[in-house]
Amino acid sequence: MRAILNEIGRLTPIGTVRKVDGSVTHMKVYPEFCEGLKDISLYSHLIVLYWAHRRDNEEERQTLLVYPRRHNRKAETGVFSCRSPSRPNPICLCVVELLKAEGCTLTVKGLDAEPGSPILDIKPYLARAMVSS
Amino acid sequence: MRAILNEIGRLTPIGTVRKVDGSVTHMKVYPEFCEGLKDISLYSHLIVLYWAHRRDNEEERQTLLVYPRRHNRKAETGVFSCRSPSRPNPICLCVVELLKAEGCTLTVKGLDAEPGSPILDIKPYLARAMVSS
Repeated sequence: MRAILNEIGRLTPIGTVRKVDGSVTHMKVYPEFCEGLKDISLYSHLIVLYWAHRRDNEEERQTLLVYPRRHNRKAETGVFSCRSPSRPNPICLCVVELLKAEGCTLTVKGLDAEPGSPILDIKPYLARAMVSS
Repeated sequence: MRAILNEIGRLTPIGTVRKVDGSVTHMKVYPEFCEGLKDISLYSHLIVLYWAHRRDNEEERQTLLVYPRRHNRKAETGVFSCRSPSRPNPICLCVVELLKAEGCTLTVKGLDAEPGSPILDIKPYLARAMVSS
């Protein structure tokens, strides 16, 4: 039987990418979610999940095979075997360095998102916990 | 201005967790998304994003502070500073070891999900790409 996302199974943007300055990005978490940032400064690196809103259209979401640019492959590869933002659920993932946390604003390094990208989630990056096997 | 997820901004489960046998999990990707698994066997480890469907209710999604079990903390911490499945968007992330890819079924080790959990995305895990800063 199929897994069904119930009616509550919607995405709520918790913030947005405000400004990109080279490799430095300013993210704004919306005030009503700010409390969730408590203790964030304990971590040097974070995992940021954001929505590739420019790829959120039927064509890109139906794309299952791509020629990944970064991999320099000449053959098509599956979207689940690469980081292409064209995929059934355009959720992008970046591990970033936390440079500053001030109020609801996080300044991070290495976020590959453009201004206006909706932020879906932030998690601490724990290198030792990434591969548990 | 707020980032708005447009009407297409919905989640589509690409598969489901079928069977959990100790630390080994069998994931089934739905046939219409199977082509996206091309070349998946090139990777020893994968990132799996799944939906914590049992936490998908208003109360859990409004939770911003928790006592994280695994961290053994006595004080509340923000949900973005821990891996609690109670969070505004109950998207869980696991790095897993790929044991076998056969047709639409992936056998993996280390997936912390229960049978029936909707799979949202699969990405290759590239240790060298996880921290780009």
